[in-house]
Amino acid sequence: MLTRVKSAVANFMGGVMAGGSNGDHPSGSDLPLKFPYTRPEFLGLSPDEIECSADHIARPILILKETKRLPWSTGYAEVINAGKSTLNEDQACCEVLVLKRRPAGSIGPNRAPMTRRRSSLPNGEGLGLQENLDSSEDLTLHYWALFDGHAGSGAAVMASRLLHHHIALHLQEVMEILCTPDLVPPTCLSEEPINHHLTPSSQRVLTRAASLRGAAGAPGSPSTPPTRFFTEKKVSHESLVIGAIENAFKDMDAQIEKDKSVYNISGGCTALVVVNLLGNLYVGNAGDSRSIIIRSGEVIPMSAEFTPESERQRLQFLAYMQPHLLGNEFTHLEFPRRVQRKELGKRMLYRDFTMSGWAYKSIEEDDLKFPLIYGEGKKARVLATIGVTRGLGDHSLKVHDSNIYIKPFLSCCPEVRVYRLAQCEHGADDVLVLGTDGLWDVLSNQEVAEAVACFLANCDPDDQHRYTMAAQDLVMRARGVLKDRGWRISNDRLGSGDDISVYIIPLMYGNKQN
Amino acid sequence: MLTRVKSAVANFMGGVMAGGSNGDHPSGSDLPLKFPYTRPEFLGLSPDEIECSADHIARPILILKETKRLPWSTGYAEVINAGKSTLNEDQACCEVLVLKRRPAGSIGPNRAPMTRRRSSLPNGEGLGLQENLDSSEDLTLHYWALFDGHAGSGAAVMASRLLHHHIALHLQEVMEILCTPDLVPPTCLSEEPINHHLTPSSQRVLTRAASLRGAAGAPGSPSTPPTRFFTEKKVSHESLVIGAIENAFKDMDAQIEKDKSVYNISGGCTALVVVNLLGNLYVGNAGDSRSIIIRSGEVIPMSAEFTPESERQRLQFLAYMQPHLLGNEFTHLEFPRRVQRKELGKRMLYRDFTMSGWAYKSIEEDDLKFPLIYGEGKKARVLATIGVTRGLGDHSLKVHDSNIYIKPFLSCCPEVRVYRLAQCEHGADDVLVLGTDGLWDVLSNQEVAEAVACFLANCDPDDQHRYTMAAQDLVMRARGVLKDRGWRISNDRLGSGDDISVYIIPLMYGNKQN
Repeated sequence: MLTRVKSAVANFMGGVMAGGSNGDHPSGSDLPLKFPYTRPEFLGLSPDEIECSADHIARPILILKETKRLPWSTGYAEVINAGKSTLNEDQACCEVLVLKRRPAGSIGPNRAPMTRRRSSLPNGEGLGLQENLDSSEDLTLHYWALFDGHAGSGAAVMASRLLHHHIALHLQEVMEILCTPDLVPPTCLSEEPINHHLTPSSQRVLTRAASLRGAAGAPGSPSTPPTRFFTEKKVSHESLVIGAIENAFKDMDAQIEKDKSVYNISGGCTALVVVNLLGNLYVGNAGDSRSIIIRSGEVIPMSAEFTPESERQRLQFLAYMQPHLLGNEFTHLEFPRRVQRKELGKRMLYRDFTMSGWAYKSIEEDDLKFPLIYGEGKKARVLATIGVTRGLGDHSLKVHDSNIYIKPFLSCCPEVRVYRLAQCEHGADDVLVLGTDGLWDVLSNQEVAEAVACFLANCDPDDQHRYTMAAQDLVMRARGVLKDRGWRISNDRLGSGDDISVYIIPLMYGNKQN
Repeated sequence: MLTRVKSAVANFMGGVMAGGSNGDHPSGSDLPLKFPYTRPEFLGLSPDEIECSADHIARPILILKETKRLPWSTGYAEVINAGKSTLNEDQACCEVLVLKRRPAGSIGPNRAPMTRRRSSLPNGEGLGLQENLDSSEDLTLHYWALFDGHAGSGAAVMASRLLHHHIALHLQEVMEILCTPDLVPPTCLSEEPINHHLTPSSQRVLTRAASLRGAAGAPGSPSTPPTRFFTEKKVSHESLVIGAIENAFKDMDAQIEKDKSVYNISGGCTALVVVNLLGNLYVGNAGDSRSIIIRSGEVIPMSAEFTPESERQRLQFLAYMQPHLLGNEFTHLEFPRRVQRKELGKRMLYRDFTMSGWAYKSIEEDDLKFPLIYGEGKKARVLATIGVTRGLGDHSLKVHDSNIYIKPFLSCCPEVRVYRLAQCEHGADDVLVLGTDGLWDVLSNQEVAEAVACFLANCDPDDQHRYTMAAQDLVMRARGVLKDRGWRISNDRLGSGDDISVYIIPLMYGNKQN
């Protein structure tokens, strides 16, 4: 994640090969590491190979060894940055998880103890999860994830090890509902047999609200409004999976915060995850990685980036509502550039959280404070510190030389989009591409789509290694080749000097395995 | 606006023919009216005709008299509701405004006195505005607007009289910039001659930020970060117009609030406005009216509705940030239905402002409070009170029998979308349709597009009355005909019992007149 955290923080990055940095949490350096620095487990690299992969001059592109296979013949490739950090701060994870069914009738209060384990969950043990198994009683979940770290690799490595377990845990809570296609998710769980909820009439139950505000503290008030009928909102199975992914991100973030009291967990990371479950792909994104589907050569965006510019109105609204979060040093207003003292009383362009357009205002003393959002494009920053506004970790990250925390401007909540995989026919060249910002900074959606389509068209359709080769080709196109004055790609444009990680996931296998 | 405000408020609606209700502001009834109830000025109705138009049994459809013409041969039709309120709470306005150029060099501090008039602006007098004039030195602006009132007609009538003047005032502030196509809007206005900003090199000025936080209170701090270069953000002419419309809505709302201390201004209203300026159409919307463009039979949505459901996350976020706004009587969480006391400790579906999906949580005492957002579809309410979440007025509106104000959950800020009219060729059947929710509650975008296309295809293309006839046809299709059991439309569906107002604006005239 190039230039994402201001260089003052990046300067702490030296000498972390042995253990990960703690640039944003000086006191953490005395604590043991939660997880050591590594490369994705599925690459199966030796410690020597891991060390060699961090060559900032050669920038070798790593791909799966021929003996390794990812589910659905997924392709993967990665390359380290050109020197902005000692280590590759991207991390990746790919798993097939099997959720075990609980005994029948277990939806109800007796399941509470299980969920209590969530926030201190160290790994997948004891969760009823088993990998690489299948059974008709069980629910199989495919999972791919990319994490792009900053200011250290601790949060990214930890999230790559644990986020899928949090997702599985939340899904297991609703697994019986998900496994019963005709079951409308019950509004309230009870110890009644589950088939009590199966009758069609329960799908829209008229509920008589005895009083519009009956439980709001004024029962029996003399002016009770007339009674009215309300329907019960019907919740879909899909929205239970979306809710599970959303809450798993929050739990992952809370676990990082909690474990920082006893472990050295440096920095923060973005997270882009794909969950394949019951015929749907769920893409959850918190950060500036990106995923697109390429189907018959057409691009379907499956995520949107969260940056100071794309999230301006949320950030300004938060600052306006809770001005103490700005520590009296920042203004929530946006200006096209920094306001100078000599401009007091003059009229300058601005916009606030309510505006997408611009207008002029008279400059006052308060407007001389540093703007909450500042800079353009890849150089845009929130609180002059960070260029991404969603992600995990960063609990200790503060504005340089101040006591102003970047959270809660930096939020851990993902946006989740759904793709109905089983409802479409897919050919061998229809794929889901996931990439960290190192890819998308230099290649557009259209360029990626054309490159992948062109590459796959020239491969043997039965060669399961073709997606790995296509991923390698993409990383090569984004990194470029080393010329006299740096890394160059097509049309003599600058190549990406950032860490680059890419999955290419063929979609036709999804239909076959669900 | 049928069932938009709870019936307890609607009950105050009787006997307002003489003067407008004050359902939400009892003390206002002693004050003089700001404006009397009326129908749109361009209809040119006599007092007798206005009285006859309020026949809830016959529900006559009003159209332009043959002697009247709106700009661009715009069609308009309206009908009153079926009895839910004594008066037609919709209002409309259509104007051609001419903004006069100021003397050269007047951009700068010397213009400040003019803007001070804004918030108490009683009408268009003295603003340099003239109607139905044109000159090469001036800027012509076409304006169409619909206002859908609730709990009285005061705010809707006032907004229909004044909002365009607020828009014109804001546009006049930036008129010289708008009239100079090559001029990049200056970041800071000064007394320098305006052509100082015309050189191309000013479009992206590298500004040396002396210190990242130099003016943030710690000048000369020992750890001053390294100096960096930032570009100056370039602001477009379009975004100045968007900002002008956004701020005009805020000023209109502030004027209603201020004038309520001396006038009886009842209720609130939605606002949907179209501004045609310099080859662009700007559509500003605050509420649940809707506009679509029909071009070659295809639908282009030009607005989105603001309702408790569409704005759930903004409303929940606001309540979470400022819980005192809920008066300890509401919870910011959403549940599929009201939680009952006997469900304490059980697990129920919920979602908070971070979630688009649903999950289960254990019910606690706080969850028994009434939900901030409640109900589905047209019955959804914020604070159990109102079914629309953007609009003007309503400053006195409170939760029934409480001291909880609906503002700021109800926001006056519009969303503004732009359509580049001059960049497209338009035929005689390409139109912009504006309608209050009475239209869209019973007819889909597609049904409206098909009805309009079908109607216009059967008209003489040279008959300038065709758009009025098409508007009348649309209102007829939405109102239906009176059968034994009420108003019925095609396929024996229920017709709209709400007030219905429709503009049909042909787009080909836009190209010709700009």
